[in-house]
Amino acid sequence: MKRGAGSLPAGPPPGTRGPLDAARAGREFDRQAAAGQTRGMDMPTLRWLDGPGGPAIALLDQTRLPAEEVVVTCRSVGELVAAIRRLVVRGAPVLGLAGAYGVALAAYQGQDVAAAAAALAGARPTAVNLAWGAHRALAAWRAASPDTGNRPPAGLPLAQRAAAAALAEARSIAAADAAASAAMAVHGLRLLPPGARVLTHCNTGRLVSAGEGTAFAVILAAHRAGQLAKLWVDETRPLLQGARLTAYEAQRAGIDYAVLPDAAAASLLASGEVDVVLTGADRIAADGSVANKVGTYGLAVLAQQHSVPFVVVAPLSTIDFSTPGSSGIVVEHRTAAEVTTLAGQAIAPPGSAAYNPAFDVTPGRLVTALVTERGVV
Amino acid sequence: MKRGAGSLPAGPPPGTRGPLDAARAGREFDRQAAAGQTRGMDMPTLRWLDGPGGPAIALLDQTRLPAEEVVVTCRSVGELVAAIRRLVVRGAPVLGLAGAYGVALAAYQGQDVAAAAAALAGARPTAVNLAWGAHRALAAWRAASPDTGNRPPAGLPLAQRAAAAALAEARSIAAADAAASAAMAVHGLRLLPPGARVLTHCNTGRLVSAGEGTAFAVILAAHRAGQLAKLWVDETRPLLQGARLTAYEAQRAGIDYAVLPDAAAASLLASGEVDVVLTGADRIAADGSVANKVGTYGLAVLAQQHSVPFVVVAPLSTIDFSTPGSSGIVVEHRTAAEVTTLAGQAIAPPGSAAYNPAFDVTPGRLVTALVTERGVV
Repeated sequence: MKRGAGSLPAGPPPGTRGPLDAARAGREFDRQAAAGQTRGMDMPTLRWLDGPGGPAIALLDQTRLPAEEVVVTCRSVGELVAAIRRLVVRGAPVLGLAGAYGVALAAYQGQDVAAAAAALAGARPTAVNLAWGAHRALAAWRAASPDTGNRPPAGLPLAQRAAAAALAEARSIAAADAAASAAMAVHGLRLLPPGARVLTHCNTGRLVSAGEGTAFAVILAAHRAGQLAKLWVDETRPLLQGARLTAYEAQRAGIDYAVLPDAAAASLLASGEVDVVLTGADRIAADGSVANKVGTYGLAVLAQQHSVPFVVVAPLSTIDFSTPGSSGIVVEHRTAAEVTTLAGQAIAPPGSAAYNPAFDVTPGRLVTALVTERGVV
Repeated sequence: MKRGAGSLPAGPPPGTRGPLDAARAGREFDRQAAAGQTRGMDMPTLRWLDGPGGPAIALLDQTRLPAEEVVVTCRSVGELVAAIRRLVVRGAPVLGLAGAYGVALAAYQGQDVAAAAAALAGARPTAVNLAWGAHRALAAWRAASPDTGNRPPAGLPLAQRAAAAALAEARSIAAADAAASAAMAVHGLRLLPPGARVLTHCNTGRLVSAGEGTAFAVILAAHRAGQLAKLWVDETRPLLQGARLTAYEAQRAGIDYAVLPDAAAASLLASGEVDVVLTGADRIAADGSVANKVGTYGLAVLAQQHSVPFVVVAPLSTIDFSTPGSSGIVVEHRTAAEVTTLAGQAIAPPGSAAYNPAFDVTPGRLVTALVTERGVV
């Protein structure tokens, strides 16, 4: 896996602008952010590269934010799977994109596309979007492949056209994700009172989406509507996606926010300082059980205890009808080092074991509302 | 405040052995720990120094553990108050000792003893033991002071004898704390099932006590009785007293433990892996409300949700009958930097605000049992 400023196409719809390096993309974002023009502008979270070095996928390394904006360029599915496991890219919607673009990458490189889709789908076990995106691109590739009987358009080799079909599907998923994000923002905003004080967990904004995200898209909409009084950001241990990423996005958007230790959310709710809890989801089972970043379940219990609405914002692609209930959700357990070290420093005695599930499962009865792109359930 | 290896008396009862430097004390502890002889042996958490440099109080710097064992030597009440605020020394029982020894220090130095007691009592607003210890030593000093009418023993200046009375009171508090710790361990052990899997929060062991602590004393007793199957240690953000200190004490004791992010406790409880939650307390109001390290309240709610007993272990000195209920408990709010930086590194964007209460308050109805040195309430 190579790091460095890759050659990035920028701006919606993907691929319609010329190449732009990552540093320039960051400066451009800052310029437009300063000018209040960032709405709808792509962050370089995940980009398809089509330069002279061959196709590749460029990821903004979320493990280095907010200290550094580093782009990781994946030139093979193996590199992409490793980056997904390392959480260079994370968050339900963008993992769907990663799965789909990864299949397109395998197709352009003449690899075993079905095997690549399986590897991508299994890179992390809990987030359903990864498999969903990989399988959609795989289906598009199959539909355009010679042995399916579909006639490829003339003028390009057959394999190339099938790869282009996979890429087009990935781009279509990205466009749909951006549209879903905007729709969720509209639907979610209706649930918020004026002067809302919102508590959120983990990171659900532009970094995880081709649009403005899930729960964070609602928060941004409320901010723009003058309806957001305060954003409380759970720091979200162990990997601090709240403190690092949500705070970063909130600060750029000019939101009045404060970070809190996850364990302080209980007293914050008890003190009456929260009107609504908004989170995303990584997988929703058919019975309404919500798998999301570890800590979500505890928040839901505490929200109910204090009669505060607990609202999940997620695209329909997050709902997994093949998983009937919570017992069918596989929860990924990650290494002890994520808990016992921080930025290379030991924060527990060497040799300490850790309990480190990446997700937990919230029963549907604790979820006040589910906001999707089609409306509120 | 000077740092370095001070001249430390070691071993119970305090002051009966010759001076021993901190490094030697640490090596001695390790030797005896290896030989299984550490039961009842003092850790150099807080020591009264009586060397040629005049009286002083030596503190094992809890902010540096477990990476380094550094002793901070306080030669004035001002230095001691600063060390208490900086959490060099923390934890309910040992703060009682710090208050009492601090008053003795002021008395030996001929300072305004009542003003010193007031400064110590106010160093941190929530922990009741600090004021309790300071006021007990002040009362002993007053009782032995000339203007009280008490006749000081002959052969020493009056002021010296009054100071000696304050010091004797501090030592008596330490001896009583060690005895209380042992008694709480006996009473608490009866509440644990065989093969208990215990979840604890923050740090409540030898580092906070002249004995083996509060909740951790019960855990140690269970471990020695072969009754402890697993210790789950909440890391206890923001200052990681669980990951740094409880894990350190558990590792030294040979306990099978694992550290977890505070937000993972909810799914751990949901998975049925916890038989009892054990915590200490910083102040207990007359109505049974328990102020303790932030996160305790959320744990208590979750324990109730999963029908897991939530047990508080605290000496009677923690009960504050002058505070009728939770609304009378002042909760200390600490600086944002404790949340937004770690070991000098930023973990949130510069300029981020934070919500950082040091404590929260658990209503008495969520507490299954309160273990004191007199028995179980």
